[in-house]
Amino acid sequence: MTTTEAQNGRPATAILLVHGPLREGLAASLTGFVYRNTGHIVYHDQYVDREKQLYFTRLEWGLPGFAVPREEIGERLNAAVAEPFGVRWRLHFSDDIPRMAIFVSKLPYCLYDILGRCRSGEWKVEIPLIISNHPELEPVAKRFGIAFHCFPITPANKRAQEQKELALLRKNGIEFIVLARYMQILSGDFVAAYPDAIINIHHAFLPSFPGPQPYHAAYQRGVKIIGATSHYVTEHLDAGPIIEQDVIRVSHLHTVEDLIRMGRDLEKVVLARAIWHHIQRKILAYGGRTVIFG
Amino acid sequence: MTTTEAQNGRPATAILLVHGPLREGLAASLTGFVYRNTGHIVYHDQYVDREKQLYFTRLEWGLPGFAVPREEIGERLNAAVAEPFGVRWRLHFSDDIPRMAIFVSKLPYCLYDILGRCRSGEWKVEIPLIISNHPELEPVAKRFGIAFHCFPITPANKRAQEQKELALLRKNGIEFIVLARYMQILSGDFVAAYPDAIINIHHAFLPSFPGPQPYHAAYQRGVKIIGATSHYVTEHLDAGPIIEQDVIRVSHLHTVEDLIRMGRDLEKVVLARAIWHHIQRKILAYGGRTVIFG
Amino acid sequence: MTTTEAQNGRPATAILLVHGPLREGLAASLTGFVYRNTGHIVYHDQYVDREKQLYFTRLEWGLPGFAVPREEIGERLNAAVAEPFGVRWRLHFSDDIPRMAIFVSKLPYCLYDILGRCRSGEWKVEIPLIISNHPELEPVAKRFGIAFHCFPITPANKRAQEQKELALLRKNGIEFIVLARYMQILSGDFVAAYPDAIINIHHAFLPSFPGPQPYHAAYQRGVKIIGATSHYVTEHLDAGPIIEQDVIRVSHLHTVEDLIRMGRDLEKVVLARAIWHHIQRKILAYGGRTVIFG
Amino acid sequence: MTTTEAQNGRPATAILLVHGPLREGLAASLTGFVYRNTGHIVYHDQYVDREKQLYFTRLEWGLPGFAVPREEIGERLNAAVAEPFGVRWRLHFSDDIPRMAIFVSKLPYCLYDILGRCRSGEWKVEIPLIISNHPELEPVAKRFGIAFHCFPITPANKRAQEQKELALLRKNGIEFIVLARYMQILSGDFVAAYPDAIINIHHAFLPSFPGPQPYHAAYQRGVKIIGATSHYVTEHLDAGPIIEQDVIRVSHLHTVEDLIRMGRDLEKVVLARAIWHHIQRKILAYGGRTVIFG
Repeated sequence: MTTTEAQNGRPATAILLVHGPLREGLAASLTGFVYRNTGHIVYHDQYVDREKQLYFTRLEWGLPGFAVPREEIGERLNAAVAEPFGVRWRLHFSDDIPRMAIFVSKLPYCLYDILGRCRSGEWKVEIPLIISNHPELEPVAKRFGIAFHCFPITPANKRAQEQKELALLRKNGIEFIVLARYMQILSGDFVAAYPDAIINIHHAFLPSFPGPQPYHAAYQRGVKIIGATSHYVTEHLDAGPIIEQDVIRVSHLHTVEDLIRMGRDLEKVVLARAIWHHIQRKILAYGGRTVIFG
Repeated sequence: MTTTEAQNGRPATAILLVHGPLREGLAASLTGFVYRNTGHIVYHDQYVDREKQLYFTRLEWGLPGFAVPREEIGERLNAAVAEPFGVRWRLHFSDDIPRMAIFVSKLPYCLYDILGRCRSGEWKVEIPLIISNHPELEPVAKRFGIAFHCFPITPANKRAQEQKELALLRKNGIEFIVLARYMQILSGDFVAAYPDAIINIHHAFLPSFPGPQPYHAAYQRGVKIIGATSHYVTEHLDAGPIIEQDVIRVSHLHTVEDLIRMGRDLEKVVLARAIWHHIQRKILAYGGRTVIFG
Repeated sequence: MTTTEAQNGRPATAILLVHGPLREGLAASLTGFVYRNTGHIVYHDQYVDREKQLYFTRLEWGLPGFAVPREEIGERLNAAVAEPFGVRWRLHFSDDIPRMAIFVSKLPYCLYDILGRCRSGEWKVEIPLIISNHPELEPVAKRFGIAFHCFPITPANKRAQEQKELALLRKNGIEFIVLARYMQILSGDFVAAYPDAIINIHHAFLPSFPGPQPYHAAYQRGVKIIGATSHYVTEHLDAGPIIEQDVIRVSHLHTVEDLIRMGRDLEKVVLARAIWHHIQRKILAYGGRTVIFG
Repeated sequence: MTTTEAQNGRPATAILLVHGPLREGLAASLTGFVYRNTGHIVYHDQYVDREKQLYFTRLEWGLPGFAVPREEIGERLNAAVAEPFGVRWRLHFSDDIPRMAIFVSKLPYCLYDILGRCRSGEWKVEIPLIISNHPELEPVAKRFGIAFHCFPITPANKRAQEQKELALLRKNGIEFIVLARYMQILSGDFVAAYPDAIINIHHAFLPSFPGPQPYHAAYQRGVKIIGATSHYVTEHLDAGPIIEQDVIRVSHLHTVEDLIRMGRDLEKVVLARAIWHHIQRKILAYGGRTVIFG
């Protein structure tokens, strides 16, 4: 399904993410590349890290009528911009539907939220499969007609199970993974296979309360606001680049049980926003932080 | 299913909502009624409107071991408290599962959200049926195994269709109704049949932007924050007692389409909180406003 | 004090705000103008209204070493960019300290907040005078060593008093005016003398509750969130382009007096943010809305 | 100034804070004590920690016409309630104006904010003196006519200087202390002299980023929301019971300097709310957390 046909009546677009050293002429060179090839720009956002003198941009233009065939765009970009200016880039096409896997354990609410959004047409995304270390949520997968694979994890089998998971993901052409309250720490090897492509939801306002049972810890500390954090997974637990956070006010009246209940809505929304930014190709992660284009 | 058996391992409770003129001895009389009959209070919240000298309370106590059989509690309360102090009350039992009907039109996301929450075990509520004026969402109802009834509405048939709906609701023992983006104005007669028992979600921060297309109006006005409002339905459009509101920051960068997308999450959460307060028996509506107990 | 000397150790900059029809080559023409004249860009933000095909930008570059003397920049810009592309522009220099007048009535808190911020060095702004229609706040002006002028307003003298105020403002070289809870409606003639240069704070979340006593109205309506709105003043009351809004959660527990108290902090912060954006030259008002550059 | 005269036209009240084990009859005993002595209750809020079976209440009643002279109320309370029920209490009178000292270092904005609020009549509080470890803010104190005492601190003189400060505080009848960005850690001995009576503002969302330079740390971590926290000071740095927190959304566009600027408003508001709760006698600290009555 990689064509220039319209989606929702909209022509397919090319989405280019670029970052590198700030140089005079770089922005004009990028927009010039599009204009010269008769492309129509529909989105252009730029960010400059003045301190480090770095340039970041997201440029999107219509493919119908563009003079360069899409399979040649990369090569041409290298010659016209990337090599002269020493920048790195990623190119996406809006009609390539991203293929996403969901990892879950026993808590159903993030899973229901994600599947409801997909079925409501909120996201253009394919979900070929759901992976879990427990069998409990298989009925949810079935309700939505999605394949469910259970890989129970023990210290002894972890490495082998992860290899099987990776094989399954590759076979299904999975581009990115969402950990929807998946209660297992992924190994460094696993994470290395999906750099900046595994999105986790942590049920606290990081860096407060990393690790398990953050709502209990928040209650003990007596905070007046709780939060949730979505981030890309790196080899360091709960320390990857933050994509989105949100918070809600609490008081002494709220028990730990209340915090857990109120936090669920935060988790769902904060995870959903991260997924949306990711599939819109709006995120550039660098230096432990994220640039989220507007 | 009205027994004193435990739910989630918790003993059944009686929940008493009282309001009336503020009088010395009223609070003590209420708690005394419980203690005297060997009840164990698990929740007690009070609110006093000092200006109007009104007293509001929500009192909850365990039923196991309570000396008064549940079917006699009302009569005893009248004699001991309501008549001497001239107050009004409502009594609920935590093991009576509320029966809720959902009204929808064509937009699926609030419906998915509600059904996902029910199936996740977030709420103790029964949903015997979904009513719509359009057929589009029948597959969603089916996916979750809930009866779907379609009542197309025209100016000519509105009165008759509403009567059929009311008959169906009564037959199913429906206690309250949730309008999950139902795009039809209910008649005064219909509303009168469910006083303080029809919850609507309006996709704006009322009283800003009542009526249709509030996101378009918000865009035109150039507001920097948009909101959503859940409220009990009265005969006056978008003017009933507000239960819950929430907001999200926007900017000139956001198109109307962005506002609609961002607003969906507000609508879902604001509606869900209202439903939760309602089924927890935490809401007392009076004088066009709501008291939401903590 | 219009020199290229450094402020806070920072070199003076030129700040250019441009808007007009979206055209290929416009952005490159603007940045090219700066680069060609050996200017160093320190800030560049752009916004495109895709629907109306309009382009907005804020471009800032260092003046030391810039090849064009500052008094000739405008003329050169017209020739190089504005005329060829049909755009409008405004040019500011970071070392021109804006001269601001404050209008107050009897409520002191926004005035204290503004003066405290100025004296703390938060803003680079000159305040030559405070104008009021009442004498009560003269001691506050004295405490901070600022001239205070009282112009009592009656229906009969309003026109004449406003003319005196305008003369005084002109004499003091006032560039923009802040209405810090000024309880008088300015005439259309007065407003016309300061287009997009009079900032008001309204103590409600506009368009909810325009006009007087919004906190009372909010209480009556039973809203669960209150807000404040800063906007440019136009001839239509409380209907000018919104610059900033913020909100705070309230409940049935809060009296009107509580809302007034809690709202004060909103008013102060929302007004202060608007002033800051204005003096940073970050605001472009058009079509009843504002673009606030990042 | 301890009389039963009205303040702002309001009769003086007694404010009683009680906490202890939850027992049947305790609430009725407290309200009964007031009613029996012909007191008129104007405020009554209760909180029960069900898990620990603890009861907390704030009860306020009018003093005019109350049958017990205010100097005997404590003794009578002990006999009627505290001893029989084993609870602890604190009694305040609304016409006792609290005496507050402010500690500052070099940053002026919280100081300006506090003094502006006092002079605006927002708080009923006396500020006999300001203490600093640096001389820079003396002109601010002078502008508002408040005594300024400078106690430079070195490791060698810290103990001696703190003793002088304590003597000065006692001499001035200081009841509580506000650390308005005071950049010195108070010793355990100093803190012990003012238990639950030293309010600090920390410029981060605790427990995230304790210690110095939290805005730099927040920038490095790439958080999407920053916060501020007011808390009672204990001997453990940034670990005392939290009184109030608030947050503001940030993005990759914001530099450390932006975070510092945006955070200032958070700090001011979060500190001001803590002071307001404290002087309203609305706070009970216990077990490392705070109960803030409504």
